[in-house]
Amino acid sequence: MNKVEKKKSNVISDEETLKRIDTLGKEILDEISKEKNPHIDIPVRGLSNVLYNADKKKIELGNKVAKRYLFNVAHARSFMQTLLVAAFAKELISEKAHTTLRDLFYALKHTIAGTKENTINEQNESDSAIVDLEVALDVIRENLHLAANPKGRVVGNVKIRDSGDMINWSKLGSGGWAIPSIVEQIEFVDVDAEYVIVAEKDAVFLRLHEDRFWKKHKCILLTTQGQAARGTRRLIQRFSEELNLPVYILTDADPYGWYIYSTMKYGSMALAHVSDRLGCPRAHFLGVSMTDIDKYDLRAQTIKAKDVDLRRGKELLKYGWFKNKLWQHEINLFLEKKYKAEIQALTSKRLRFISEVYLPEKIKAGNFLP
Amino acid sequence: MNKVEKKKSNVISDEETLKRIDTLGKEILDEISKEKNPHIDIPVRGLSNVLYNADKKKIELGNKVAKRYLFNVAHARSFMQTLLVAAFAKELISEKAHTTLRDLFYALKHTIAGTKENTINEQNESDSAIVDLEVALDVIRENLHLAANPKGRVVGNVKIRDSGDMINWSKLGSGGWAIPSIVEQIEFVDVDAEYVIVAEKDAVFLRLHEDRFWKKHKCILLTTQGQAARGTRRLIQRFSEELNLPVYILTDADPYGWYIYSTMKYGSMALAHVSDRLGCPRAHFLGVSMTDIDKYDLRAQTIKAKDVDLRRGKELLKYGWFKNKLWQHEINLFLEKKYKAEIQALTSKRLRFISEVYLPEKIKAGNFLP
Repeated sequence: MNKVEKKKSNVISDEETLKRIDTLGKEILDEISKEKNPHIDIPVRGLSNVLYNADKKKIELGNKVAKRYLFNVAHARSFMQTLLVAAFAKELISEKAHTTLRDLFYALKHTIAGTKENTINEQNESDSAIVDLEVALDVIRENLHLAANPKGRVVGNVKIRDSGDMINWSKLGSGGWAIPSIVEQIEFVDVDAEYVIVAEKDAVFLRLHEDRFWKKHKCILLTTQGQAARGTRRLIQRFSEELNLPVYILTDADPYGWYIYSTMKYGSMALAHVSDRLGCPRAHFLGVSMTDIDKYDLRAQTIKAKDVDLRRGKELLKYGWFKNKLWQHEINLFLEKKYKAEIQALTSKRLRFISEVYLPEKIKAGNFLP
Repeated sequence: MNKVEKKKSNVISDEETLKRIDTLGKEILDEISKEKNPHIDIPVRGLSNVLYNADKKKIELGNKVAKRYLFNVAHARSFMQTLLVAAFAKELISEKAHTTLRDLFYALKHTIAGTKENTINEQNESDSAIVDLEVALDVIRENLHLAANPKGRVVGNVKIRDSGDMINWSKLGSGGWAIPSIVEQIEFVDVDAEYVIVAEKDAVFLRLHEDRFWKKHKCILLTTQGQAARGTRRLIQRFSEELNLPVYILTDADPYGWYIYSTMKYGSMALAHVSDRLGCPRAHFLGVSMTDIDKYDLRAQTIKAKDVDLRRGKELLKYGWFKNKLWQHEINLFLEKKYKAEIQALTSKRLRFISEVYLPEKIKAGNFLP
């Protein structure tokens, strides 16, 4: 295996996050000592402030910033909640502990002494305070030691260090490494891979893993098991940015598959504030594409598109990040043919067609969508 | 670590499965050569043939068997489909390959030469043929090399061998081993554990794994991430039956959590034919229990039960496997109090309350439900 010659990582250290929390606290204390109305600057996350940056290939937040004040009846409650979350995150980081959004809600929910008022009534309040803090500090929730539900597994000729353990992704039997919700602490030690295959479906992972595709073709093999979890998106970005590896994504040929792809690549409107750390602008869509259906004679295996598929296809056409010749052609072909195909349709050729013919051909020819 | 002194495993070898497929084929050929109407004996799976065996603590199939004939207009199509699946399974096993139900559907679906008839039109036909073959051969789908979607992760002082790799579950960083869909091939090599903790929720796994609970208390720690996948259920059974380890299950205190528990322990009515290999009759329900809510002062963290929760609770009361004093009391307490609690409610005490106080106390006192 080769030692990793990696590019600079954009991982934010715990020390740095603590520093940013402290700075926020000090600014507020400073305003209090000057008898000013304490405030926090919070970038606006509404759709009015979400835009697609075509140069950086990222869905991101614009420049609008709102000021949240302590002495403002409409702001006071969420001001308090944001500070409660900040204090809790500081505690978590200092104790080197991680927890979930739901646990944070239970930990912080209590009745304020001498009143009948709860600090937090419903989890959506603490969730919203967490995102406020993410954007105010320009960190991701993972830097605050707050975990999302993990999903996804990975194998390949890679050794990593995580929490004191050296883990060899090529020696994990049929299972693979369960990708945790937080991957900031992972250190790439040895990497012998030329690209990364990301399969939306576990069925594809099963096939390629059993056929030792990653070994024969020197790649990292990962499945997101549906829409990619945050930890998995972050890991894919780190492969691309730090290890400089091309990332090829495999989904079904339908609007749902394309959307899963676009979220991994460009980010999403709802989470525009995290595209910088969870997006992967240099990812490619490897297949299954609409033109593959003719090329590989899969017509008999296609499925009639439902109305909801066609509606969704028309919506995708209008998104800035699908506005390039190849994707417009792909989506229009779908709208014209009115059928879709699952990636498992390739199994109709034969079981190992995907690992022995389809993928090697596509990758060699560089036949993918941007 | 200790060498495993394990009890006899109920794993069915590939050779044995192949033999059973061959025997089925030979019996049919034999009938054909004697000019009889070829048939397959298939145990009935309808509710009329599902019963709860209180001695074995298993939901299982009764003795009713149906005969499926080739020369019977109502049977011929599914007779053919069952044999198609049997032939495909034989091929999979011989090639040491595994695949999914969806892939099998694509692989077997084709138009019969000289007709306009498809072998299989919709996946429910091939799925049903697979189950027919499972019960006819008395094997599980996994023995036929057919995989379900995997879910779940595991850590602990355990070394296993899988597909030629030696895997140490105590050296997997924050991730853990991703449990594959098929675990028949796994060999337990070294096991230094006194019991198994199964957490329904990943949040609990995160907490206990980060606190190295499995190391301090010598146990195996596993999360099902919701309703347990087949591979995960099978692995839990193997811990219990082959390694003779007590299994303690942690879910929320609500009918949904109890049902997840009961499926792992007794099996389910829909999958009664696999309880023998996926059930875990000696599992215990460790918590959170309704009485824990008072004992640990969690009343402020409870959630009002919805109508659907109460209806579900009343249904559970009537199931044979919940008809014992302790569970009737537990469920009646829920119906009377009309509130439920999530396991994360324990975090309201403090972050590590579950790993430092709750679990050690409960396990030491043997305070669990049957």
